[in-house]
Amino acid sequence: MSDPVQWEMEKGAPLGHSAHLLHDIPLPAAVVFEAPLTNNLTWMQRFADDHGAKLAPHGKTTMAPELFKRQLEAGAWGITLATAVQSVAAYAHGVERVLMANQLVGRPNMALVADAIERGLEYYCVVDGVANVRDLGAFFAERGLTLNVLIELGIDGGRCGCRNAEQVKTLVTAIGEESALALVGIEGYEGMIAGGDEVASVRAYGERLVETVRTLHASGVLDCEAPLVTASGSKWFDLIAEAFDRAFFKTESREHYTPVLRPGCYVVHDHKLYAGAMANVQTRHPELEGALQPALEVFAHVQSLPEPGLAIVALGKRDIGHEPDLPLPLRLYSLHDENVAPIDISDWRTTHIMDQHVFLALPENADIAVGDVIAFGTSHPCLTFDKWRRVLCVDESLAVTEVMTTHF
Amino acid sequence: MSDPVQWEMEKGAPLGHSAHLLHDIPLPAAVVFEAPLTNNLTWMQRFADDHGAKLAPHGKTTMAPELFKRQLEAGAWGITLATAVQSVAAYAHGVERVLMANQLVGRPNMALVADAIERGLEYYCVVDGVANVRDLGAFFAERGLTLNVLIELGIDGGRCGCRNAEQVKTLVTAIGEESALALVGIEGYEGMIAGGDEVASVRAYGERLVETVRTLHASGVLDCEAPLVTASGSKWFDLIAEAFDRAFFKTESREHYTPVLRPGCYVVHDHKLYAGAMANVQTRHPELEGALQPALEVFAHVQSLPEPGLAIVALGKRDIGHEPDLPLPLRLYSLHDENVAPIDISDWRTTHIMDQHVFLALPENADIAVGDVIAFGTSHPCLTFDKWRRVLCVDESLAVTEVMTTHF
Repeated sequence: MSDPVQWEMEKGAPLGHSAHLLHDIPLPAAVVFEAPLTNNLTWMQRFADDHGAKLAPHGKTTMAPELFKRQLEAGAWGITLATAVQSVAAYAHGVERVLMANQLVGRPNMALVADAIERGLEYYCVVDGVANVRDLGAFFAERGLTLNVLIELGIDGGRCGCRNAEQVKTLVTAIGEESALALVGIEGYEGMIAGGDEVASVRAYGERLVETVRTLHASGVLDCEAPLVTASGSKWFDLIAEAFDRAFFKTESREHYTPVLRPGCYVVHDHKLYAGAMANVQTRHPELEGALQPALEVFAHVQSLPEPGLAIVALGKRDIGHEPDLPLPLRLYSLHDENVAPIDISDWRTTHIMDQHVFLALPENADIAVGDVIAFGTSHPCLTFDKWRRVLCVDESLAVTEVMTTHF
Repeated sequence: MSDPVQWEMEKGAPLGHSAHLLHDIPLPAAVVFEAPLTNNLTWMQRFADDHGAKLAPHGKTTMAPELFKRQLEAGAWGITLATAVQSVAAYAHGVERVLMANQLVGRPNMALVADAIERGLEYYCVVDGVANVRDLGAFFAERGLTLNVLIELGIDGGRCGCRNAEQVKTLVTAIGEESALALVGIEGYEGMIAGGDEVASVRAYGERLVETVRTLHASGVLDCEAPLVTASGSKWFDLIAEAFDRAFFKTESREHYTPVLRPGCYVVHDHKLYAGAMANVQTRHPELEGALQPALEVFAHVQSLPEPGLAIVALGKRDIGHEPDLPLPLRLYSLHDENVAPIDISDWRTTHIMDQHVFLALPENADIAVGDVIAFGTSHPCLTFDKWRRVLCVDESLAVTEVMTTHF
C-alpha cells in the first residue's frame, strides 16, 4: 500500500464540493437537504423568539459542529448537550455556551468540564441528588472554579430528577453548603410524560417548573440575576413555550427569568414520528405560519432482487435508525436512464433490517433494477446521525454543498 | 478557545497508555479484555486449522484494524468485509486480502474497489444476478482489471443469493461472457436459516454449497486452481466447517479447494446470544477443548437514583447495542471505597434504554451510589463496536493496554 493516509477512506468520506450524490459518492450516504434545513433553523428560532424564550438546541441529535454553527448564527442562545465528552467536543468546535441537560458524574468527566471552563466555556449542568452535589462541590472547589447547576425536576416513574418539593428543598440546602456551586435555575424534560391526557400533563409539568423557579427566586437561594428555567424536546415544544410565556410575559416579569427551549430533532425533523408531532402542534396552533420540514435522508443502492416481490437494499442498522419505525422508502432513482425523474415509492414498505441490509417488499411489476438508488426517510433522526462520521449537505439537484463532520 | 485541535475530545478519546479505566477515562467507554481476546483469536484459528479451512474473520463486527492485525497474525487467510468502503478502509490499514461477502453495486463503490485492486488489494466479491454481472463486467473491463467473483447461494425467503440451480447456471453463463470477471467459487450465509430443524437445514445448506462448487469445478467453468467455498457466521460455524471438512478431507480432494470460514463476532464473543450459540457448539462437540469467552464490555457511571428501586445509568443506544437483548449488568464498582472488590450484579435487570440513558431495576437494599461504575455485557457485539471511534484494550487490572480505532 503506497500511502494509507492519503487515500484512507471512511464511510461517506470522499467528498465533497462539486460532487454529485448519485454519481460521485459511494453509497449509502446520509444527506441533509439545504432548503428544509434552512427553513427549520429559521422556523424554530422565530418560534422561540415569538414566545420570549431562548433557544439552546439539543446538539446530541446531530453532534455536527457545522450545524451548531448554523444554529448559533440563526440566533440560538447556546447548545444543549447530553454528556461531558459531547460538551467538550462542542466547545472545541466553537460552542461557547453549553447547557448539559444531565448530571455530571465521574471525576474524569468532571475534569474534562473543568478544563473547558478554565479555558472559557460557559457551562451549566443539572443535579438531582445530594451525593452528586457533594462530589461536584468538592471537585470544583479543589479546582478553584464555580460550577453552574440547575435542579432537575422529574416525574414519578420517569427518568432523572427530583420527584417532589421536599427533595428540591433538601437539594437547595445541600447546594447552598457547597461554595463552588452556583444554583442558577430549574431544568426538566417533559418527553418522559406518556399516557393519560398527555397535553394536560405536559402543561402541568411546565407550570411546575415555572412555579419551582419562582419560589426559589423569591426565597433568594438562586445565585444569578435572571434564573434559567428550561425544558422541551421536539414533540411538545409549543406547550412548554406557552407555559413559560404565560408565566413570564403576561405577568410582566420576563426580564427576571431566562426561559430556555431545547429541541434537538427539529433541525432536520423527520418523516414520521416528529412529522406527526408537528401536525399536532399545527392542530393546537392553526395560527402558526410555515412548519418544520424533513431534511434528513439516507441514500442507498438496490443490491439484490433475489426473488419476486423482494429487494435487498445495501443499507442497514449501521447506516440508519430503525426505531421506532423501520426506514421509510421515499423515492427511487433509476441510474440506467438519467432522464427519468425519481419515482415516488412512499407506499412501499421496509419489512426487515439487519446490520448491513434492508428488506423491501415490492409491489407487483415494480420497475426496479440492481444498482438503482433509493432515498429513505427516518422516524426519529438522532439514531441516524450517530451512524455517520460525515453527513453531506445537498441542494435540490443533489449536488453536495457541504461535508459536515460529526463528533460522537 | 486556545487550540481546538490540541484538546479535541472524541468519545473515549483521551489516550492512553498507562491510563486506568476507572480513574483516568471519561465514561462511558467500550473495552476489550486482553485475555479473552487472545483466547478467542487462538481458539477460532485452531478450530479452522483443525477442520482444514481458512479463516477470513468478518471484519464488519469491529472495523478495528488493530484487531484485523491480530487476527491476521493469528493465522487468518484474509478479512471479510460487508461493503466497498469497509473493504477499502481495511486495505488502507494493511489488510491485503479482502473477501467482500456482498454484491458490489454502484459506480463510485466499484471505483473505490478498482483503485484498491490497482494498488495491490486481492479482492473477492459475490454476485447473484445477471444485471450486476453485466455492470461489473463493463466497469472492470473499462478499467482493464480482473474482478474475482463468487456466486452467492441463498435460500427461499432469505436474503441475497441464487435460490436454485437454474439461476446459478444462468449466472455462470453471464459471467463467462464478461472477460473482466473471474468466477472463483461459491459463497453463502447460513445465518438466514431460521425455524424448523435448523441444525439439519444448516448442514444441508453447507452440503449444497459444496455440491455446487464441485459441480462447477468439474464442468471447468471456474477460473482458478483451488476454488473458494465459503460460509459461516459465529453461530453455526461448526456445522459449516464439518460440511466442508467431510467433503474435502474425507474424499482426499482438499488440495483442490479453498474452504473459508467467516465468523466475525467470535473475536470478542458476547454474554448472551453467542454465549448460547457456543454452548450449543459444545453440546454438539464435547471433544472441543476450551471455548470462546466474552471480551467486550461497556463501563458507565450510575448517574441518578431518583426513586426507590431505580438507577439511571449514563449509557444509551449511542453507546451499546440493545438488540436482541438490553445491556446486561455484570459488575458494580464502588468508587468511594477502592478496597472493595466489584460486586457481581448479573442478576440485576436493565428495563429500558434511551439514546443516552439506561434504566436499571434494583433489588431491595442494593448498595449503590451515584458515581459508581457498572460494567455491562452485550448480546451481539456488532452493534456495540459501531458506536465507538476508539475502543480500549484493558488487562485484568483495568489498565489500558491499547487504544484501538474503529473505521465505520
